[in-house]
Amino acid sequence: MQADVSWLSYSLTVKNTVRVQKMAESQGDCEVAMSPIELYKKLNAQEEKVRALTTAKAEKADIDAVVKLLLKLKVDYKQMTGQDYKAGCPPSVSSVVSGDGPLTDGGNDDEDTVDPWNVSTTRDKGIDYDKLIVRFGSTKIDKELVDRIEKVLRQKPHRFLRRGIFFSHRDMHQVLDAYEKNKSFYLYTGRGPSSEAMHTGHLIPFIFTKWLQDVFDVPLVIQMTDDEKYLWKDLTLEECHYYAVENAKDIIACGFDINKTFIFSDLDYMGSSPEFYRNVVKIQKHVTFNQVKGIFGFSDSDCIGKISFPAIQAAPSFSNSFPQIFGDKQDIPCLIPCAIDQDPYFRMTRDVAPRIGYPKPALLHSTFFPALQGAQTKMSASDANSSIFLTDSPKQIKNKINKHAFSGGKDTEEDHRKYGGNPDVDVSFMYLTFFLEDDEQLEKIRQDYASGALLTGELKKILIETLQPMIAEHQERRKQVTDETVKQFMTPRPLNFNLPA
Amino acid sequence: MQADVSWLSYSLTVKNTVRVQKMAESQGDCEVAMSPIELYKKLNAQEEKVRALTTAKAEKADIDAVVKLLLKLKVDYKQMTGQDYKAGCPPSVSSVVSGDGPLTDGGNDDEDTVDPWNVSTTRDKGIDYDKLIVRFGSTKIDKELVDRIEKVLRQKPHRFLRRGIFFSHRDMHQVLDAYEKNKSFYLYTGRGPSSEAMHTGHLIPFIFTKWLQDVFDVPLVIQMTDDEKYLWKDLTLEECHYYAVENAKDIIACGFDINKTFIFSDLDYMGSSPEFYRNVVKIQKHVTFNQVKGIFGFSDSDCIGKISFPAIQAAPSFSNSFPQIFGDKQDIPCLIPCAIDQDPYFRMTRDVAPRIGYPKPALLHSTFFPALQGAQTKMSASDANSSIFLTDSPKQIKNKINKHAFSGGKDTEEDHRKYGGNPDVDVSFMYLTFFLEDDEQLEKIRQDYASGALLTGELKKILIETLQPMIAEHQERRKQVTDETVKQFMTPRPLNFNLPA
Repeated sequence: MQADVSWLSYSLTVKNTVRVQKMAESQGDCEVAMSPIELYKKLNAQEEKVRALTTAKAEKADIDAVVKLLLKLKVDYKQMTGQDYKAGCPPSVSSVVSGDGPLTDGGNDDEDTVDPWNVSTTRDKGIDYDKLIVRFGSTKIDKELVDRIEKVLRQKPHRFLRRGIFFSHRDMHQVLDAYEKNKSFYLYTGRGPSSEAMHTGHLIPFIFTKWLQDVFDVPLVIQMTDDEKYLWKDLTLEECHYYAVENAKDIIACGFDINKTFIFSDLDYMGSSPEFYRNVVKIQKHVTFNQVKGIFGFSDSDCIGKISFPAIQAAPSFSNSFPQIFGDKQDIPCLIPCAIDQDPYFRMTRDVAPRIGYPKPALLHSTFFPALQGAQTKMSASDANSSIFLTDSPKQIKNKINKHAFSGGKDTEEDHRKYGGNPDVDVSFMYLTFFLEDDEQLEKIRQDYASGALLTGELKKILIETLQPMIAEHQERRKQVTDETVKQFMTPRPLNFNLPA
Repeated sequence: MQADVSWLSYSLTVKNTVRVQKMAESQGDCEVAMSPIELYKKLNAQEEKVRALTTAKAEKADIDAVVKLLLKLKVDYKQMTGQDYKAGCPPSVSSVVSGDGPLTDGGNDDEDTVDPWNVSTTRDKGIDYDKLIVRFGSTKIDKELVDRIEKVLRQKPHRFLRRGIFFSHRDMHQVLDAYEKNKSFYLYTGRGPSSEAMHTGHLIPFIFTKWLQDVFDVPLVIQMTDDEKYLWKDLTLEECHYYAVENAKDIIACGFDINKTFIFSDLDYMGSSPEFYRNVVKIQKHVTFNQVKGIFGFSDSDCIGKISFPAIQAAPSFSNSFPQIFGDKQDIPCLIPCAIDQDPYFRMTRDVAPRIGYPKPALLHSTFFPALQGAQTKMSASDANSSIFLTDSPKQIKNKINKHAFSGGKDTEEDHRKYGGNPDVDVSFMYLTFFLEDDEQLEKIRQDYASGALLTGELKKILIETLQPMIAEHQERRKQVTDETVKQFMTPRPLNFNLPA
């Protein structure tokens, strides 16, 4: 299972980011993360405390409390550095978690690993998203929020909201508060263009963002991180830029309003907007290597481009990065719909924002789109059978689903009729929760499949008949996207948007 | 004594950079520097060798050789990390030399410390530049090269060349080879604009660069690193940009040809040139944190902006960073006149160049301009009496020199007449070597001062009479520099320059 909608592509573990998040909360705006050496020093001090209390023959309970924290710190230290704490032996340079070797869970619990390119879990149903919310310190999109969105918009919320596909948020209530007072905001999302081959999962954030643009009637900026792909992948600048433009066509085919949408390649826009670069430098001044090491697991052998890149993904969160759209206004709130694996970027952004005088962006997080082979397997760009590509023919779609979509059904028709299938692990059913609009029909399919009334072949047929026209229509719309249209979308220009007073 | 002409402002020690240079040479294009952990591992291996030989009862000479290298590595390790090597205790994260605390020499030799803002030496005559050449691995500008320049140009070389003020180079012969074959090159220099107050020392590279532009008739790009000053100093972006424009006026007042000179603020140009940003990203992909840590002494607590900045100073070394001047040509050779403290940037650049398919820039290095108080003291921007500012009045110039210029003369006139003065430590005489054009007159002054025929007051008078009109003329020319002129110089545009076939 893969984080399909990610802009980015290096390793990070849920555990690592959680710890960082908690530290950020406890330390306010100062430092995002404690560095290995800081933890080492804290351990030194804690050992000293234990010694002092023991020497002073303090109460057993007091000593116990101090020892308990010491042991906890030692566990943290081992997790962070991969080494046992040893007095007089500070953490080595190579001890911090590296992008190439993400921290393992040490086998002592069942936590999922979330890594933008290698999300993994042992659960058939995929990642435990409720746990992820607790770990990331974000907030669940609960019924109250969905109801409020419905009330504010006076229309049914998108199926991704109704079905918990966008399941977590930061500050969405504040966005709605402002919106109810007729204050505008803007949307920001993005894509890391590492190949021409986009698949259905890649569309999730764009389908949702288009809906948000339509119902809120707000401007949207879409970042194509071609610079990032160049830094991480074995690709030339020209290839990355080419993919950015090709992917932009698929994004445009989702139906974005050309009058309200600016799509930009970093490689182009950085060189066309002094204001954007100014914000990048501002952010870069306020984030240390220790911080990005803690958040993203960078190591000393990573190139300096990777190390400074997070600032480039952060900068579009601030409205004055786009003077052609927002003039010199730097306080227009930003709402970022993205997959949850992108959250570390925006935790960093939210940490920096108040220190450079900008508002924190709000976020809406989506779950990951499962591979055909099941929610616990990886979706691989190099394995054409792991996903439905936007270029697949109706026949390819049919064959892939029939052949590869992991089934929650029983081995024989007889058993299936008798015991029923398991929709929670069935990939065809999962895909339908993403793409079938009708709630009642979806619920009936779930019940029929669970009861055994609906066979796996029949379920797959429904999915095939849902996806075939959807993909064909996408292909048709993409064909209409001319080079001229792409150029228009990608030209820095004013958008049709009323600035709040 | 200070590295006046530096673009940059953080610490680095000669020792550190030397080691890095040597490693770069021995390792080819792979890695610029060995990291502390790599050195630690090498030490481990070396200890193992000693043990093996001892156990095997090898020849004493063989064991001695291995032990000798072991001891040498231990010294290197101590120098690099500030810690003693201890088996089983890898270097700590905090052990690498930090920008805030440059490596000391440990008192075991008399090497100078060269730090772009804090160059220090215990020698009255200032830095030992011959030693510096050996350490940096550059080449001395010898009589042969000066003679060749004279022959190629058919005119007398600039006094800075005749007098060893530009004393070191890299690949200058190659530049001349190409020039003799009618192949063009371009000049690149820069300034870090951290305040409005420029002083005479700041002019050295510009006076020399103007001469190079005149005699070779080549285009010139001048980088104002306002982004770097923002990252390093407690200044706003607006202040740094303002200083960039103000400093540009003083630079223009040196007489550069508007048809052949492009001056740019990083904050502006990065946002106006996708080609420049593309080169920055290319460089950033090919330099690791380990490398910049080794070269510049960055630490984990440095901001990511500082860590990635070296790529921005490197990028103008490649001609396709300026398509408005050179089109898409990426192989026009670049010659960089700068103070020697900037060399680490360009060693890094020269290391990266072949790996991204670009030619290595050539360099001409200058010595540092001494403070009024003497070659071993610091010139401080906050101490108005440590240097002659470009805004000083004739009276201020006179008072500063009479009051503060360190004298190599004797305490009494009687002693001076009897024993003579020491021009080698006399700041007034040093300044004259920079600014008095007439070689014979200068030599006569030197002799007269050394013999005691010329008194300190008389020597100072000559300097005052040399500087007063020079500064006044500069002020007059600066007055003529209108905002419109600055804008023209700072607008990306074609230059009047014949591209080689």
